[in-house]
Amino acid sequence: MGVLDSIAGPRDLRGLSDDQLTTLAAEIRDQLVQAVSRVGGHLGPNLGVVELTLAIHRVFDSPRDRVVFDTGHQAYVHKMLTGRAADFVGLRKEGGLSGYPSQSESPHDIVENSHASTALSYADGIAKAYAIRGEDRHTVAVIGDGALTGGMAWEALNNIAVARDSKLVVVVNDNGRSYTPTIGGLATALTSLRTNPRYEQVLDLVKKRLNAVPGVGPAAYDALHAMKKGLKDALAPQGLFEDLGLKYIGPVDGHDRDAMEHALAHAKKFGGPVIVHAITRKGFGYDAAEQHEADQFHSPQPFDIETGEEKVRGRIWTDVFADEMVHLGARRKDVVAITAAMMHPVGLDQFQARYPERTFDVGIAEQHAATSAAGLAIGGLHPVVAIYATFLNRAFDQVLMDVALHQCGVTFVLDRAGVTGDDGASHNGMWDMSILQVVPGLRLAAPRDATRLRELLNEAVDVDDAPTVVRFSKGPPPADIPTHAKAGGADVLVRSGAKDVLVVAVGSMCDVAVEVAERLDAQGIGVTVVDPRWVKPVDPAIVELAREHRLVVSVEDSGRIGGCGAVLLQTLNDAGVTTPFRLHGIPQEFLHHAKRAAILERIGLTPQALARGIVEDITALDTVTDDESVVDVDHHL
Amino acid sequence: MGVLDSIAGPRDLRGLSDDQLTTLAAEIRDQLVQAVSRVGGHLGPNLGVVELTLAIHRVFDSPRDRVVFDTGHQAYVHKMLTGRAADFVGLRKEGGLSGYPSQSESPHDIVENSHASTALSYADGIAKAYAIRGEDRHTVAVIGDGALTGGMAWEALNNIAVARDSKLVVVVNDNGRSYTPTIGGLATALTSLRTNPRYEQVLDLVKKRLNAVPGVGPAAYDALHAMKKGLKDALAPQGLFEDLGLKYIGPVDGHDRDAMEHALAHAKKFGGPVIVHAITRKGFGYDAAEQHEADQFHSPQPFDIETGEEKVRGRIWTDVFADEMVHLGARRKDVVAITAAMMHPVGLDQFQARYPERTFDVGIAEQHAATSAAGLAIGGLHPVVAIYATFLNRAFDQVLMDVALHQCGVTFVLDRAGVTGDDGASHNGMWDMSILQVVPGLRLAAPRDATRLRELLNEAVDVDDAPTVVRFSKGPPPADIPTHAKAGGADVLVRSGAKDVLVVAVGSMCDVAVEVAERLDAQGIGVTVVDPRWVKPVDPAIVELAREHRLVVSVEDSGRIGGCGAVLLQTLNDAGVTTPFRLHGIPQEFLHHAKRAAILERIGLTPQALARGIVEDITALDTVTDDESVVDVDHHL
Repeated sequence: MGVLDSIAGPRDLRGLSDDQLTTLAAEIRDQLVQAVSRVGGHLGPNLGVVELTLAIHRVFDSPRDRVVFDTGHQAYVHKMLTGRAADFVGLRKEGGLSGYPSQSESPHDIVENSHASTALSYADGIAKAYAIRGEDRHTVAVIGDGALTGGMAWEALNNIAVARDSKLVVVVNDNGRSYTPTIGGLATALTSLRTNPRYEQVLDLVKKRLNAVPGVGPAAYDALHAMKKGLKDALAPQGLFEDLGLKYIGPVDGHDRDAMEHALAHAKKFGGPVIVHAITRKGFGYDAAEQHEADQFHSPQPFDIETGEEKVRGRIWTDVFADEMVHLGARRKDVVAITAAMMHPVGLDQFQARYPERTFDVGIAEQHAATSAAGLAIGGLHPVVAIYATFLNRAFDQVLMDVALHQCGVTFVLDRAGVTGDDGASHNGMWDMSILQVVPGLRLAAPRDATRLRELLNEAVDVDDAPTVVRFSKGPPPADIPTHAKAGGADVLVRSGAKDVLVVAVGSMCDVAVEVAERLDAQGIGVTVVDPRWVKPVDPAIVELAREHRLVVSVEDSGRIGGCGAVLLQTLNDAGVTTPFRLHGIPQEFLHHAKRAAILERIGLTPQALARGIVEDITALDTVTDDESVVDVDHHL
Repeated sequence: MGVLDSIAGPRDLRGLSDDQLTTLAAEIRDQLVQAVSRVGGHLGPNLGVVELTLAIHRVFDSPRDRVVFDTGHQAYVHKMLTGRAADFVGLRKEGGLSGYPSQSESPHDIVENSHASTALSYADGIAKAYAIRGEDRHTVAVIGDGALTGGMAWEALNNIAVARDSKLVVVVNDNGRSYTPTIGGLATALTSLRTNPRYEQVLDLVKKRLNAVPGVGPAAYDALHAMKKGLKDALAPQGLFEDLGLKYIGPVDGHDRDAMEHALAHAKKFGGPVIVHAITRKGFGYDAAEQHEADQFHSPQPFDIETGEEKVRGRIWTDVFADEMVHLGARRKDVVAITAAMMHPVGLDQFQARYPERTFDVGIAEQHAATSAAGLAIGGLHPVVAIYATFLNRAFDQVLMDVALHQCGVTFVLDRAGVTGDDGASHNGMWDMSILQVVPGLRLAAPRDATRLRELLNEAVDVDDAPTVVRFSKGPPPADIPTHAKAGGADVLVRSGAKDVLVVAVGSMCDVAVEVAERLDAQGIGVTVVDPRWVKPVDPAIVELAREHRLVVSVEDSGRIGGCGAVLLQTLNDAGVTTPFRLHGIPQEFLHHAKRAAILERIGLTPQALARGIVEDITALDTVTDDESVVDVDHHL
């Protein structure tokens, strides 16, 4: 039985000896590597915060004191120390431990959203609430240097700096990286903090040097010391945080548990907001991670612990995009690429290798990604902004007011769209197809397979007077689905039997829809499956197809409120087409983590469930027709 | 004929003498005061940038060089200097000069969006594009210190700091204010920049003092000077911008045209990104503005030039909210208020006066407003976040992932919702009712009159486990519209004759709908007008009412794609209710500036237009019924 087994909660950490704590840290690292090697997950970030998290839980009293982790993927150690070490066997499995903090798992968990740069804002609010309520509780926010590149973090720092009554400790976990090295001026500022002598050290230095000058002696130092007005401010190496008026402690070696505890205890006593600047190493303590050049095993697939070799994954949508971007870069010299701190995950690394001067990593800064893209377009280039679908939410206003209002040719490529599964509610890309519907002039494409992704990406980039969006799923694309015929700009994939059912299938749902058609055909129900390719604006050909069929069924891998089906329904209504309409998509709720396939099964987006529903609907229509009570036909659906 | 009359474009500024330039500045100020006194508009900010704008246009060569104004309301002077001085007679009138930069007005104008904090991102993109294309053009961004509190500006600075090839000059127009004094740590940092001696001055100071100490003499200074390693960095008063690695010039007196030109010319020569820090005074040169304590005539109503007295405006929606917030503050001690740098415009000033410790101005930082509100809710309080509807777009992800996902009781109050008119495309609040539909658990209310605003605000604040939204229009509310009967949680406002038409009217459209009903009644068409009060979620009672009528008409003052009508249509379709449906709202396009009433007329949201459409629809339905060709009834609509 190890030390970790004896930890039921943070208070059990108090009585441990130094040796026990060192053993505990090793056990935690071992268990992190074991768990993630089996199922994949976030490894590098968690290996980097072992001592930091131990120190926090020894100095503060969670859950009375609140600990907020930014981008919750760095909370594995926190989970182990709050009674969930044994649960890591079920990590990221349905019904098992979430890969992020989860309120339903533990009172020690607060923030479930894994979008970056939020922790300081939550913490500012929580600390202010306790101050107003007169509760003597501390709030601790743990945020990486990468997340500090996000604008929200700046907004929060600006407010925290003047929140004098807040018992708030901001732990900056500075490993110099987000996924990859942190970019921009912030990195410069943090480096200068790491290397700058502090005020006291400067005075010491001045004293020593002056004393060493013959004929000068202590009088000169005293004189220096006496210059009270102005000089202290001028001499003190004002760092970024102190410029804002924030109390700063650091830099501290984040792997020196004693030093971390000392710094945190000091910060706790201060009584107002304090920054504790901890220097850590991503992947610390596991050779394969530390030596992993790309991203220190930020979030590996399952891997072999000895060799560090990840399971080879098959070819995914991202790979298709990555290859095509390189071709695009050759075809269009004006194409530039933008990533928000995720060069590799979104597949821009090949493009970057070939065209480094045409590739920009803007940090975790989707807002700037969108608006600087508008600027690049105004300057005569065509930017491709590649981000995860769920993170586009961060730039909604910028897509609308900066890109669309100015009719800028900017292409947004949304990876991991639809149900993603494992990573929980905030990773599912189920919002984009609804919120983008309202953006005037924007064109939205959802490729059904690899060939269509290549085609649509090229078509999108050739639009130079409006924003375009290409969105696709997580994982591998299906085998190519051939076009049976064209209908306007749309592809008819299946046309069989009578014109009973029109299935309008969006993106990855085309594959499902073709299987639905096979099932219906076997039952003698005539079916047309159409892939709009461009789902916004609605193709008039689809309106006509809808008019000709007895039932319209729309299927999309996105939220069903206000999405492609909803706008099609609205368009049909405007056009006076009253064909009965069945709308399938993701129910408008936050989805718990589980495998993508399991979620699709649960929400009825499988060939079986869809075909069953259509058979029922058509049977009901037939019954009504047989009864000749045609007027109320729709009421029976 | 004055000097201004001779300025057809920026190049005409080159040959002017100092005296002429001084005269020109006076003429510009005079014309600014004249124009805004007649129609209202942005005055204080423009009075503050006269010399700054003159200097920019003398040093740079617009439109070859690009000048981007953040929050375009500070671009009046720029408009005058780019050939549009004479057009100020038509300022902010339909077809006349826009109150913001406008691409259709001039090649000197680039950015039409007036949402704050975007200029640096555009400029970063434009400058990078020119660098990549090898074009020798400069980009100038003018941004206020207030706008620097927005996270986007931080994201941009972080990127600009490392964009070595960018010929980019950032002019920080530091007047210490957004609408009201700029808040937070940034203000501290800027103040320290304003007052800090620069490196050379510090060395001078040290030298003088050391020389004054008996027995020390020049040797000590030489010793100091010799400490090359480390000490220069430590001594140099690193300011915020230099911490990020940005070249900094300043502070410069922004009303000293010569000094500004000198600083800008220096910046232009540098060849990389540079910050020019200009200190200006909002309202400079017009006594009534300078002495206007609230906001230096930021954006006054029409006013008397001599006395500075604004035309008294009637009681508007904002006033009703302002009063009720004070009552709420007394009733609920846990209610706190948040504004994003607009305390007075959103009506929180009374609450602040009464409950200063429960009021937070977070700066131009809607993201932080939302997420710190989530934190306040987690800490046991109930925040009311009051912002303009159009600015909620900036916090969409935060409302969804930070507030709703964590089931936080936060109330968002959206002022200036719907068509606002005068301020152009980016001020219309026509997006909120669509994008908020996708947020799980969120409840959205649209009060029809002052009484309902008071009621619904209280109901909203009493929801403690989900986000709530209360949205209302610009301008005065209508006279109270009494409730005829209840239908579920909805108010039936009119019930007359047969159940021909159900009008579902949202918020300010209730007033219009009641007049529609009068017109229909006069023509013998039976009508029910219902106000859902809470438009999200859809009240089941409305579904039943729809089932009972022959025609459903929805009317909302918001974008018609994905809005309340669209979701109602979708809900009816799900429920198998096939009553013909007419959906009225704002067409999904960017609206040009004009008076609200004129826009509503143009887009058909008037009693006349709506009634006429309904009469046509009912007549068509009657005709079909008479023909007994009932099956295709909907096709005729």
